Amino acid sequence: MPSPIKDIRFTLHDVLNFSDHYAALGLNHQVDADLINMVLDEASRFAQAELEPINAAGDQGCVLADGVVTTPPGFKEAYRKYISTGWAGLCGEAEYGGQALPEAFGFMLEEICCTANMAWTMYPGLSRGCIAALSEHGSAEQKSRFLPRLLTGEWTGTMCLTEPHAGSDVGLARTQASLQADGTYRIAGTKIFISAGEHDMADNIVHLVLARTPDAPGGTRGISMFVVPKINLDGTRNAVKCGNIEEKMGIHGNSTCELLFEDAVGYLVGEENNGMRYMFTMMNAARLAVGLQGVSVAQAAYNRASEYARERLQMRALSGPKAPDKVADPIIWHPDVRRLLLTQRAIIEGGRTLVYYVAQLVERTSHAPDEDSRENAQLQLDFLTPIAKALLTELGFESANLAVQTFGGHGFIREAGVEQYVRDLRITLLYEGTTGIQALDLVGRKMLGNQGAGLQAFGDFMLAVADEAEVEFPDMADKLRGLHEDWARISMEIGGRAMQDPEEVGAASVDYLFYSGYVVLAVFWTKIALAGRQHEHADYGASKVDIARFYFARVLPRTRAHELAMASGAGNLMQVGELAFTA
Amino acid sequence: MPSPIKDIRFTLHDVLNFSDHYAALGLNHQVDADLINMVLDEASRFAQAELEPINAAGDQGCVLADGVVTTPPGFKEAYRKYISTGWAGLCGEAEYGGQALPEAFGFMLEEICCTANMAWTMYPGLSRGCIAALSEHGSAEQKSRFLPRLLTGEWTGTMCLTEPHAGSDVGLARTQASLQADGTYRIAGTKIFISAGEHDMADNIVHLVLARTPDAPGGTRGISMFVVPKINLDGTRNAVKCGNIEEKMGIHGNSTCELLFEDAVGYLVGEENNGMRYMFTMMNAARLAVGLQGVSVAQAAYNRASEYARERLQMRALSGPKAPDKVADPIIWHPDVRRLLLTQRAIIEGGRTLVYYVAQLVERTSHAPDEDSRENAQLQLDFLTPIAKALLTELGFESANLAVQTFGGHGFIREAGVEQYVRDLRITLLYEGTTGIQALDLVGRKMLGNQGAGLQAFGDFMLAVADEAEVEFPDMADKLRGLHEDWARISMEIGGRAMQDPEEVGAASVDYLFYSGYVVLAVFWTKIALAGRQHEHADYGASKVDIARFYFARVLPRTRAHELAMASGAGNLMQVGELAFTA
Repeated sequence: MPSPIKDIRFTLHDVLNFSDHYAALGLNHQVDADLINMVLDEASRFAQAELEPINAAGDQGCVLADGVVTTPPGFKEAYRKYISTGWAGLCGEAEYGGQALPEAFGFMLEEICCTANMAWTMYPGLSRGCIAALSEHGSAEQKSRFLPRLLTGEWTGTMCLTEPHAGSDVGLARTQASLQADGTYRIAGTKIFISAGEHDMADNIVHLVLARTPDAPGGTRGISMFVVPKINLDGTRNAVKCGNIEEKMGIHGNSTCELLFEDAVGYLVGEENNGMRYMFTMMNAARLAVGLQGVSVAQAAYNRASEYARERLQMRALSGPKAPDKVADPIIWHPDVRRLLLTQRAIIEGGRTLVYYVAQLVERTSHAPDEDSRENAQLQLDFLTPIAKALLTELGFESANLAVQTFGGHGFIREAGVEQYVRDLRITLLYEGTTGIQALDLVGRKMLGNQGAGLQAFGDFMLAVADEAEVEFPDMADKLRGLHEDWARISMEIGGRAMQDPEEVGAASVDYLFYSGYVVLAVFWTKIALAGRQHEHADYGASKVDIARFYFARVLPRTRAHELAMASGAGNLMQVGELAFTA
Repeated sequence: MPSPIKDIRFTLHDVLNFSDHYAALGLNHQVDADLINMVLDEASRFAQAELEPINAAGDQGCVLADGVVTTPPGFKEAYRKYISTGWAGLCGEAEYGGQALPEAFGFMLEEICCTANMAWTMYPGLSRGCIAALSEHGSAEQKSRFLPRLLTGEWTGTMCLTEPHAGSDVGLARTQASLQADGTYRIAGTKIFISAGEHDMADNIVHLVLARTPDAPGGTRGISMFVVPKINLDGTRNAVKCGNIEEKMGIHGNSTCELLFEDAVGYLVGEENNGMRYMFTMMNAARLAVGLQGVSVAQAAYNRASEYARERLQMRALSGPKAPDKVADPIIWHPDVRRLLLTQRAIIEGGRTLVYYVAQLVERTSHAPDEDSRENAQLQLDFLTPIAKALLTELGFESANLAVQTFGGHGFIREAGVEQYVRDLRITLLYEGTTGIQALDLVGRKMLGNQGAGLQAFGDFMLAVADEAEVEFPDMADKLRGLHEDWARISMEIGGRAMQDPEEVGAASVDYLFYSGYVVLAVFWTKIALAGRQHEHADYGASKVDIARFYFARVLPRTRAHELAMASGAGNLMQVGELAFTA
C-alpha cells in the first residue's frame, strides 16, 4: 500500500502553495518544494519498508513482565532505524542538534508514518510533544540536559496528565510534588492512560508530569509541571514504574501504562502553578496530531477498500455488464460502493487540506513578519484546533468503517487487515479531549469567548476563497457565501441563548462543531477544485473536481441536520425527567 | 445489568397492545399479557444468571483443534440449561414437540438473551432459522427426522450460503450436489462464514446447504437446498468438517467456520432449483433477528453508559454545581452527555417498537382471519424488513459507539466492558446482506417493484397514527402528515429518474433507506408518546414523551441531509473519472 504521496504533494504544492507560504514567511532560503518532496519520499520509503510490515503484528500487543514492557516484534528495530536516519530531530532546535525544519514537516512525517502504523508512530509522536513543551517552557539547564537525547531519539517522552478520577477534569489531579532542600521535588501519585509510558525502544523516558505542591490552590490553578526521567541523570533508576498496561480495543502496539510515581525525583518546569498553561502547549499540538491520525488511518483503510472494490466480482451493474468476460462485475461499478469510496476520499482529502492549512497557521504564528498576520493566524489556529481534532477523528472513524463496509463480511475478518483500522482509530475520538470537550472549547472559549473573532478571521479567508472560485465554480462560491452568512447568524443565536441559560452552550456544542466542520471542509474542497482545474494532468485534476462536487452534493447537506438540532435548544436535554436516563 | 423488562413490557402492552392484537387474530385463548410477562421474566432470569456472566469471557474466542471446536468457558453449560428449560422449542410446531407460541415470543427471547450475550445467542438463533425453513419446506419425513431434536435443542442448525467468491452474489455458488441411486445427494464444496458451523454444545448440527445439481441453470435459478447433518442418521460421521475458524473483530464467542463438504450425504429440501426461495424464508426471519441484535446490544451498551454517567464525577455544570457536596458533578448533568444518552434511548426504544410491530405483522400474515389483513401485513412486512435490518444495525452501532463515548477514555479499555459491544455489533451491518444490499432490496424490489404498494400500506398506518395524535401531540401529527407527503413525492421522483437510468436506483438507495427509517421511527415515537401520556405511572410515561420530543427535535432532522443527497442524482457517483477511486 503506497502512501498517497501524489495526493499529499498536490495538497502542499497545488492547493496550499507552500512555496509562496514560505516565501511570505522569509523561510524560502531554507525550505522549498524540492525539500518537501525529498522529505515526503524518504519518509514514505521508510514507512513502507519498516512500519507497514509490522502493523498487523503490532496488534498482538505489548507484554509487561517484572516492570519491563516488551513492544511487539519489529517495533524496536524499526525505531532504531528511525533514529539512525535522524527523523527524531526533524523540527527540533538546531542548538540542541535538531534540524530546525518548520512544523509542517513534522506533520508530513507524522502522516506518512501513521498511515503505515499508528501504534508505532505514537512512540515518537509523544516525544515531539515533550520536546515542544521543554523547548518553550524549560530552563536552559533542562533544555541542555534533555533535548539533545530527545532529538537524537535515544530518549523518548510522555505526557502524564490523567489520573483514575481525573480525566477531562485535570484540575482534580492529586499527584503530589514536594520541594526538597536541593531544589528538586519528590513526585508521588498514580497516572493512568500514559501512552508510550514504558517500553523497550529507548534508553530513557522523559515524563512530563502534572502534580500539585502541598499549598497549591485547588483546581487547575494549582497544577505544576515537572520533568521526571525514568533514569536519573546519574544513571540510577528513578522511582517511577509501570504498574499495569491496559487491555484496549485497538492500538495494541502502543503501551498504555499506569505509572506509579513513588517519590520519584522531579524538576519543576517554569513556575509553580503554571502547569496547565505549559501543558496546553503540548495539548494543542497533540490535538492537531490526533486530527491528523484520523486522516492518516482513514487513508490506510481506504487504500485497502479501493483495491478490493476493483478486484472483487459480485453481481452485474444495474445498467448492464461492465466486465462481460468475467462471472460478475467488479463491485466498484455499483453506485453505492462508489458512494462509500467517494465519501472516504471526501473526508480524507478535505481533512488533509484542513490539517496542512492549520500547519501553515502554526508556522505563521511564529514566523510571520508582521504582527497582524501573526495575530490573524493565532485567531484562526485557536478556532480551528478543536474542529480539526474532533471532526477529523469522528469522520476518520466513519471513513474507516466505510472501508470495512466496502469489504462486506470479509471486512469483519482480521485477515483482510481493515478492521484493525477501526479499532485503532476509536481512541482518537476520546484522547486529548473527547469530541464533547473539543466542542465546549470551540463554542465556549473559541467562539463566544472572543466575541467571534476567530470565526470572523476564518470567515474572511472563506470569502476570499469564494471570490477566487467566482468564475470557475460559481455554484460553490454562492454556497460558501450563503454558509458564511448562516454560520454567523447561528453563532449569534447561540450567543443570545447562552446569555439566558449557560446550558445552551453545551446543548449546541457538538452540533455546532460538526456544522462548522462541514463548512470548513467545503471551503477547502473549493480550494481543491480550483487547484484541480489548473492541474497539469487534466485527468488527475478533473478527479479532484469530481470529488469536490460529490462533497457539496452528498456530504455538505449534513449541515442541515445539525442546524435544526442546534436550533432546538437546551430544553429537550435539560428539561427531561430522570427516568429518561435510567437503565 | 438488568434486562429492560419494564421498557419491553411498555412496548408490548402499552404501545403495541399485544392483547388486542392477539384477540384480533383469535389467539387470545392461547396467549395473553400474563403469559408474555411470564416469558419475559423467566427469560430475563435465565439471561442474567447464565448468559451475561460469560459474555466477557466469550470474547476470548473459540478454539479449533483436530476438527473439534471448543466454545468459551461456560457456553456449553449455559446451553445445557437453556435446553433443559425448554426454550429451544418455544415457537416450534406442537406436532414435533414445540410449544407453538406465536413468533413474537421468539423475538422476546432473542432480545433478552442477546442483550446479555450476543455471541452465545447466535447458536440457538441459527437453529431457529433452520427450524423455520424445514417447517415450511421440508418433507414430512425430513420434519419428523430433524425437527424433534432441533426443538429440544439437542441438535442445532446452520445456514450455509456463502462461498469465498460468492457473498452478496449467492448465484455464483459452486458447491455441487449429485443425485445418488438411493435418492440422496453427495454434496461437495467449501462454505465460509458459517456461524455456529461447528461447536461442542450439541450432539449434532443440521446444516442447510445451498448447492447446484450438475445440470442446473446458472445464477440463482440453479440453486437447490439440502439438509446435511453433521452426524448421519445411522450415527456415523458425515463428510463435512470444519477447516478453519475465522479471527474476527468481535462475536469471538461464536465460531465462524469454514466448512468443507467432501461428498457429504445430503437430502434435497422441496424441489431442485427452488433453493433461493426456501432460503429467503430463513433469510427474511434472519434479517429481522439481526435488526433486533442491533437494538439488543445497543441496550446492553446503554445500560453501562447510563450507570457510568450517574457515577462519574467530572467538572461542574455550566449553570452551577449540581452536587456541591462532591468534588465535581456527575457527568450526567453536562448537556452533551445527556444528548449522548438520549440519542441511545431514542434509537433503542424506537427500534424496539419497530421490531415488535414487525413481529405483529409476521403473526398477522399467518394468523389474521381475513385475506385483506394478511395481504396488508405481508406488504408492510416486505417493505419494513430491509429497513429494520439496515437501520437498526447502523443505528445500533452508532448507539454502542455513543455509549463508549459516554465513558471517555475509559470506554476504550476492555475492562470497562463497553467496547466489546461495538466490536460485536460491527458484523450486524454486514451479514445477512449489507446495508447496501438491504437498500437495493428496499428501493428496487419493495418500493419500485410493487409500485409503492408497501409504502402505501405503511403510509396508511402512519396517517392513522397522525390522527390518533391529533389532540395530544398536534405538532407530531403535523410532522407525520408532512413527512407522509414528502416520502411519497421522493419515492415518485426516484421512480421517474430510474426509468431514464437504472443506476439511479443504486445511487439513491442507502439515503432512501435512512430517510425511510427515520420517518418510520418518527411514527413509532409518536405512538410511544401517546402511550406515555396514558401511562399509569406519570413520571415513567412523561419520560417517554420527553424522549419522543428529543427524537423529533434532534434525530429526525437527519432526514434533510438524506433528502438532499438523494435528490443530487447518480451523476456525482457514476460520471466520475477512475482516478477518483484509486489509492
